[in-house]
Amino acid sequence: MSTPNLSSRPALLFDLDGTLVDSVYQNVLAWRQALDIEGIDLSVWRIHRRIGMSGGLFIKALDRELGRNLSHEEAERLRENHAKAYLPLWDQIRPLPGARELLTALTGMRVPWAIATSGSVRTAKGPLALLEIPSDIPVVTRDQVAYAKPNPDLFLAAAQRLGVPPGDCFVVGDSIWDLLAAQRAGSLGIGLLSGGYGSDELVRAGAYRVYEDPADLLAHLDELGIRDAV
Amino acid sequence: MSTPNLSSRPALLFDLDGTLVDSVYQNVLAWRQALDIEGIDLSVWRIHRRIGMSGGLFIKALDRELGRNLSHEEAERLRENHAKAYLPLWDQIRPLPGARELLTALTGMRVPWAIATSGSVRTAKGPLALLEIPSDIPVVTRDQVAYAKPNPDLFLAAAQRLGVPPGDCFVVGDSIWDLLAAQRAGSLGIGLLSGGYGSDELVRAGAYRVYEDPADLLAHLDELGIRDAV
Repeated sequence: MSTPNLSSRPALLFDLDGTLVDSVYQNVLAWRQALDIEGIDLSVWRIHRRIGMSGGLFIKALDRELGRNLSHEEAERLRENHAKAYLPLWDQIRPLPGARELLTALTGMRVPWAIATSGSVRTAKGPLALLEIPSDIPVVTRDQVAYAKPNPDLFLAAAQRLGVPPGDCFVVGDSIWDLLAAQRAGSLGIGLLSGGYGSDELVRAGAYRVYEDPADLLAHLDELGIRDAV
Repeated sequence: MSTPNLSSRPALLFDLDGTLVDSVYQNVLAWRQALDIEGIDLSVWRIHRRIGMSGGLFIKALDRELGRNLSHEEAERLRENHAKAYLPLWDQIRPLPGARELLTALTGMRVPWAIATSGSVRTAKGPLALLEIPSDIPVVTRDQVAYAKPNPDLFLAAAQRLGVPPGDCFVVGDSIWDLLAAQRAGSLGIGLLSGGYGSDELVRAGAYRVYEDPADLLAHLDELGIRDAV
């Protein structure tokens, strides 16, 4: 029997916030506070539905709400105030149930995996430390690509770092931005409810499977056709 | 032409948190903090999906997560710690867009309306003040009925206070608990996205219409068959 070709075995590309760490709601309220400081009254659920998308697109969405373009200075101030509001909430943030176990299991099964997040190196540092991500795991952050989600660039770069064609990758994410990016990358999309979206929203954005959280995904890895390396 | 019978004209029964005030996400994180103090690690999205249900049922759901029954003292401590965590978040909370305008418009049209909330008198006081609810509007809180949502009691009591049969009432809410209670009350359910549920979740729970928020509902009152009193 021939040795299986590792590069054509499926790989998993993970979003970070809401997918592996339970940080979405804190992130949402930090944006709420930053917007409040600028006098922008945006409903919290609308912020929630925009988490995980590119910061540039988020600002464009704000422009529409405001009926005017935010200046570069205003956008910078928003980002700074968000970071300031997020920091004190950080000690509330935990890995999602099963996140560490799932990643360890994949490593044990020799299934390649990587992280691809719309967050910057700075904001991703905390979650990555919580998850105890090994240093040889590819982590693609916002700073490393031209466009964040829903553009496919983050997932394409992660697949490339693993040496696996995007068509052999499963993208695991909690938001429609992950799943739209998965479709554009030509990868199969798997949705997790742990970011607070409803199941139908994820399915409509392209998820062919939806699980509750990483623990639930780990219990159903066989449904993705993932098996131990021979 | 005969005078229309006011008691058979449609009335609106409103949930409060997530329906008229933008408080759901703060409430969720306050529960997260209270649970954390008790060493209970419940994912934030799971808390989100339980907001608005009866406190007794919420505790039952926690029992299942924990695999043991919370004592009366633990449950009381949770409630106290939730209240303590919620209080400092209170200054972030705003009426939802269009909430005050919608209620004022209904009053102007002589459409009867009332508030029915799973919250206690104590927790409802703040939102009611924000909305400047007139003192003659019936407000039914948790303390006034035997069972909270998804039991129909809160909405049935509100309908009774208005003197309108429940079948002539529209229940407006942001959570599946509101909509299940509406079905049991025999009222038509209207879902709002402003609590962070997805549209399909609300429709499956019985919403025959879904709007974004009170402003969107106000712009579509005709779709409910609501018109000015003759």
